[in-house]
Amino acid sequence: MADAVEHALYQYELYFGGLGGQTPPYPISYEGLRRAARDVLDDAAYGYVAGGASEERTMAANREAFDRWRIVPRMMVDVAARDCRTTVLGTELPAPLLLAPVGVQSIIHDEAEVATAKGAAGSGVPIVLSTAASSTMEDVAEAMGEVPRWYQLYWPDDRDLAASFVRRAEAAGYTAIVVTLDTKLLAWRPRDLETAYLPFLHGEGIANYLSDDHFRSTLDQSPEDDPQAAVLKWAQIFSDKKVTWDDIAWLREQTSLPVVLKGVQHADDARSAQDHGVDGIVVSNHGGRQVDGAVGALEMLPEVRGAVGDDLAVLFDSGIRTGADVYKAVCLGADAVLLGRPYCWGLALGGAEGVRHVVRTIMAEFDLTMALTGVTAVDQLGPERLLDTR
Amino acid sequence: MADAVEHALYQYELYFGGLGGQTPPYPISYEGLRRAARDVLDDAAYGYVAGGASEERTMAANREAFDRWRIVPRMMVDVAARDCRTTVLGTELPAPLLLAPVGVQSIIHDEAEVATAKGAAGSGVPIVLSTAASSTMEDVAEAMGEVPRWYQLYWPDDRDLAASFVRRAEAAGYTAIVVTLDTKLLAWRPRDLETAYLPFLHGEGIANYLSDDHFRSTLDQSPEDDPQAAVLKWAQIFSDKKVTWDDIAWLREQTSLPVVLKGVQHADDARSAQDHGVDGIVVSNHGGRQVDGAVGALEMLPEVRGAVGDDLAVLFDSGIRTGADVYKAVCLGADAVLLGRPYCWGLALGGAEGVRHVVRTIMAEFDLTMALTGVTAVDQLGPERLLDTR
Amino acid sequence: MADAVEHALYQYELYFGGLGGQTPPYPISYEGLRRAARDVLDDAAYGYVAGGASEERTMAANREAFDRWRIVPRMMVDVAARDCRTTVLGTELPAPLLLAPVGVQSIIHDEAEVATAKGAAGSGVPIVLSTAASSTMEDVAEAMGEVPRWYQLYWPDDRDLAASFVRRAEAAGYTAIVVTLDTKLLAWRPRDLETAYLPFLHGEGIANYLSDDHFRSTLDQSPEDDPQAAVLKWAQIFSDKKVTWDDIAWLREQTSLPVVLKGVQHADDARSAQDHGVDGIVVSNHGGRQVDGAVGALEMLPEVRGAVGDDLAVLFDSGIRTGADVYKAVCLGADAVLLGRPYCWGLALGGAEGVRHVVRTIMAEFDLTMALTGVTAVDQLGPERLLDTR
Amino acid sequence: MADAVEHALYQYELYFGGLGGQTPPYPISYEGLRRAARDVLDDAAYGYVAGGASEERTMAANREAFDRWRIVPRMMVDVAARDCRTTVLGTELPAPLLLAPVGVQSIIHDEAEVATAKGAAGSGVPIVLSTAASSTMEDVAEAMGEVPRWYQLYWPDDRDLAASFVRRAEAAGYTAIVVTLDTKLLAWRPRDLETAYLPFLHGEGIANYLSDDHFRSTLDQSPEDDPQAAVLKWAQIFSDKKVTWDDIAWLREQTSLPVVLKGVQHADDARSAQDHGVDGIVVSNHGGRQVDGAVGALEMLPEVRGAVGDDLAVLFDSGIRTGADVYKAVCLGADAVLLGRPYCWGLALGGAEGVRHVVRTIMAEFDLTMALTGVTAVDQLGPERLLDTR
Repeated sequence: MADAVEHALYQYELYFGGLGGQTPPYPISYEGLRRAARDVLDDAAYGYVAGGASEERTMAANREAFDRWRIVPRMMVDVAARDCRTTVLGTELPAPLLLAPVGVQSIIHDEAEVATAKGAAGSGVPIVLSTAASSTMEDVAEAMGEVPRWYQLYWPDDRDLAASFVRRAEAAGYTAIVVTLDTKLLAWRPRDLETAYLPFLHGEGIANYLSDDHFRSTLDQSPEDDPQAAVLKWAQIFSDKKVTWDDIAWLREQTSLPVVLKGVQHADDARSAQDHGVDGIVVSNHGGRQVDGAVGALEMLPEVRGAVGDDLAVLFDSGIRTGADVYKAVCLGADAVLLGRPYCWGLALGGAEGVRHVVRTIMAEFDLTMALTGVTAVDQLGPERLLDTR
Repeated sequence: MADAVEHALYQYELYFGGLGGQTPPYPISYEGLRRAARDVLDDAAYGYVAGGASEERTMAANREAFDRWRIVPRMMVDVAARDCRTTVLGTELPAPLLLAPVGVQSIIHDEAEVATAKGAAGSGVPIVLSTAASSTMEDVAEAMGEVPRWYQLYWPDDRDLAASFVRRAEAAGYTAIVVTLDTKLLAWRPRDLETAYLPFLHGEGIANYLSDDHFRSTLDQSPEDDPQAAVLKWAQIFSDKKVTWDDIAWLREQTSLPVVLKGVQHADDARSAQDHGVDGIVVSNHGGRQVDGAVGALEMLPEVRGAVGDDLAVLFDSGIRTGADVYKAVCLGADAVLLGRPYCWGLALGGAEGVRHVVRTIMAEFDLTMALTGVTAVDQLGPERLLDTR
Repeated sequence: MADAVEHALYQYELYFGGLGGQTPPYPISYEGLRRAARDVLDDAAYGYVAGGASEERTMAANREAFDRWRIVPRMMVDVAARDCRTTVLGTELPAPLLLAPVGVQSIIHDEAEVATAKGAAGSGVPIVLSTAASSTMEDVAEAMGEVPRWYQLYWPDDRDLAASFVRRAEAAGYTAIVVTLDTKLLAWRPRDLETAYLPFLHGEGIANYLSDDHFRSTLDQSPEDDPQAAVLKWAQIFSDKKVTWDDIAWLREQTSLPVVLKGVQHADDARSAQDHGVDGIVVSNHGGRQVDGAVGALEMLPEVRGAVGDDLAVLFDSGIRTGADVYKAVCLGADAVLLGRPYCWGLALGGAEGVRHVVRTIMAEFDLTMALTGVTAVDQLGPERLLDTR
Repeated sequence: MADAVEHALYQYELYFGGLGGQTPPYPISYEGLRRAARDVLDDAAYGYVAGGASEERTMAANREAFDRWRIVPRMMVDVAARDCRTTVLGTELPAPLLLAPVGVQSIIHDEAEVATAKGAAGSGVPIVLSTAASSTMEDVAEAMGEVPRWYQLYWPDDRDLAASFVRRAEAAGYTAIVVTLDTKLLAWRPRDLETAYLPFLHGEGIANYLSDDHFRSTLDQSPEDDPQAAVLKWAQIFSDKKVTWDDIAWLREQTSLPVVLKGVQHADDARSAQDHGVDGIVVSNHGGRQVDGAVGALEMLPEVRGAVGDDLAVLFDSGIRTGADVYKAVCLGADAVLLGRPYCWGLALGGAEGVRHVVRTIMAEFDLTMALTGVTAVDQLGPERLLDTR
């Protein structure tokens, strides 16, 4: 990885554009991005990305949780040089930021996860590729080039398929396996139910299954000859609802890569993860998409970090919208965060370029927030920089 | 009762409909249901159902109370099979859910409580039939078939009539008597007062009186010959405002069925109920329809449950809108909850089918919420699954 | 005073009107009343009544304070007969309610305070007549008939005028003197300032000055001959900004009537009032019309009552909108409350009849709230009936 | 300075205008001013003034912090004469109020800071002139006449330039140097970024650089001949990001004027300031323009004042909108406050006259708030006059 980059330069690039009469190619604020994306996406696809579980109270709780803690800036520190870099589970990051696994991106943009990969790689930011991607993990790996990437696993109800996915990920140069725990069943999502819209049933977002030799071997006919049967098979084996802590040992045997469990919210589950020998966890409620009426994910982060100490990697997602949000999550114990919906809006608006724009805005504001609060390195962030207003 | 049913299947039924281009017959979210129902009901009827006491601050408090407690999901539990069933006072329930007594449903749908009964029975869910129903308890019992039902009593200012109601309920196969305590007088409801709309005065919602031999014997002329006199008599004897704890003994003598008191909110009243030998209570503020500026009913549930221990059945209503709400109420001490306004909107939109739709959505989300939080049986729910944000 | 009246009967009177197709002559809810009044008043007059100090945060705080405490209803009490009556400083009240002093009612209705007096008297409710009334205290006294009334004094910068006012009030049968403390200067009220509207400068609301022999004796010409000079004199002597606790003794000497100080909010001021021998206080922030950014008046009531014990009469105003609000204020320590803006809207809409309508709605809901929470007499109300949600 | 002035007289001046049919020349309320200014400013300029960092949550937090504390008025104090005057670091103030440094006022009004200076001086209120002003400090000094003014310094990355600015300020009669700490980098401001609008790049707001002999000496060509090179030089030397506490000593050597550090929010930074021998601090988050998700500035004021005791001058800005806000900040520990956006709207609407109008409204309400809460001098204000509602 190169030397520390001043991410804040993106700000000046945009302002200097103004000298030539140019305005930024995409909106800057989250709300601006969301509204613009809504205008270019069809209603069902927009609803799928924007929506959450039931009355979307968990989505609201995610944002409220960020408002609970407030930054107390410090002054008179030499901030001429900041270093936003950090390393998580051996993966070097230009900032404590990865792109969250978001499935079925073909409903957002024709180039789907390949575009996202290119956009992220353009800023050196790893992505976590979803099992439910519309692009194959091999194509995405190629698009990432030298930039690291992680692989997200929905643990299927077919161990051979799970093993196959992990092997393919290793072969394609993914450097961590992120197992999502919180999606054993698809949640209750009124926006999608009201349009009876589940893209997978229409063959979207299952590219990694259709391209898998083991998966194909379980079908009577090839997916090309009988697409519907492939979809039904996918629906049957998508999730192993029986998986418990004891199954971690099996996964461990399949790979030498770091294993990360995504969806942990309770300190006891965090300790269980640690006891079962995983390398990291992601504190997350899946962006409020799974359980309604649930706690804002950030609320649980300090307790979870406290439970596992410094030996376990702890990442965070659910509610990150800005660089200041990244700052708060790191202060409260996250080694890095995963960005979700914001980059989806960038993808909708401009493919790879749109993703890169969004990633750069987040990193620029994170860098500026460090500078403006007297921080020059990520490891200087801690809870003492926040005031708890509850 | 049959084996455990996976209520979440309703979700897949709806999504698979999408493959054939079909969208759900009714809205999915509470707000969607409410708005759609408003459009089909006449204004006065809509106002009667939707409205509450005075400035409707208690209605708002009911919802705020749900937001106070937030679910903390647990991971890595085998949730392949969930059992949502429970038994309350000998009545087996497919989920901890009954339909709340709502009077005068003829203003919502022509088939009134008979349609509600059919809709509920279609999912095996008992209803609590209101004394103020537009359908007779005998007709409703027939519509329920094999599915249990409870009878709600507004204690009339005529003991013989009270005894007659209880006898008829027993004869028609109702398996519990639910006495509503909080409606000794009709509350101050501006929506209805501004339209001077009290449906009972127009002969609606008094079918169980008009069909009662004892009630008829108190009239000079039959209700068919002098409807207005019957209404006035009804108004006179609707409520015995003098009833106190000592009168419970009399009611106890009239029936061997379990007796449940609805409208308890204070721990001392819960203890009094227990001391006077009733079998259960419903923590409820009548959906915010009686006293304005009152506490959200859910706020009082933990204290009430704590006061009576495990020996008394404790049910809950007032503010339940979703399956996640059912989950929270059970965690905080309810053996089961009563669903009110949501099914009324279903009734308005589609009669029995609309009611069944709403009931299935609630049960599906409840089942999913259990699954997605690591719960496989109702008795695993408790306060440790919630975070109190106050 | 007659026996206890069931105020809730107004509710039935309105519903029975519905049988003949009649709807209530005026709106029922506060917001309905306010909006209807806004439509009939000219903008400046509406702004004067509706508005408050500066950004109107104190007005909002007044309402928030009511939401802090929530009623916990009790069940199974014999509430067939309720007695809402109470006696404050020797004045018998049909409910713990008087009409607050509101000046310059001629901008609301042609009959001004005389209409208000008739409307209040129609329900046996005393009014507190403002010094800044548009009707003379003698005319108002006549309109009240046998119903008691109190006199509110803006302490003028002319002791002889103060003495004259008190003497006239005694002569006209007023039974208490309420001295407003919080209006030594007129507050900063943007609504009025933006229209440069101060009705007194146009000769409105100074009837009690113009009709006062002493006041007239201080003018070079009669007000009829030189109205502007009279207004300027009024502006000069309207308020004695120098008055302190020691001046209470002088006022005490002028009258044998009970003296009540209005505008007390701090426990120390309440104790000072008690130490200086007054008979009562009104906890009030003048409906949020004087100081912006101030505490909600109800917030201070428990502490003030605690400071003075039971020996001093404690009244309350600022934010009362409904019968449930009256209930809460009495629970928190008020012997009675003063109703302000609600009756002004009634006055705007229907003169005396409109005032009577509003008063009856408040009393009906208060009576119902007592009944529905297990209360049969005003002295049963106390803080144990409320839950503090802060 | 003259004797105490009754600022509240402005209120009467406006009301008396109403007698002649005149309404105030500008809106009275903050929101009224803001909306009116928005209508006359071009969008980019309005966005620059109105906007803040990122999602503008810090701006919202600033206002929420004021709502946390509420005034408890005291009664029966002789308030005929109030004295709003105070002295801060030797500068006499007619009220505890100065105008905050706001840069580049040429985008608001053609006369820029000269108009602001005239408007402020018309009420005897000092301004703090920004380094980033569109008017030179010499022109502004002349416009202020006898009224004191302070000079705000953005510490440039060129010590000779810093020294030159300080010397010029001294020569022009400025009586304190206010060093802004919180703007080492320009913040992330979506409103400006979306229009790619940074007025300095267009040559606005750099008058004090262009008029500086030392600055000119660093350019190859004069700014008149090569404006763009001058702008680029400005961008390079605008801020010394390396400045730390140890550099205070150097600044101290350059001037005998009091030195004030603006942007302190943490008690430890306040103590550091004190330890390094400065004379005062301004608790401020730059009106929410620098760090998003930060604490409301007022939240930190009590702790900061507690940390430094009475020996250090403590000023406050960020969120002041009304006279009641000034009152609260002084109660919580501020010796005086700086007013920002409100006067900018006045400047937009009416140049010097508009500024004077706004300043007078704030001072009038402050005076009235003192009077109406029983306060006659600024040193009587303290935390015991507020209730903390958190």
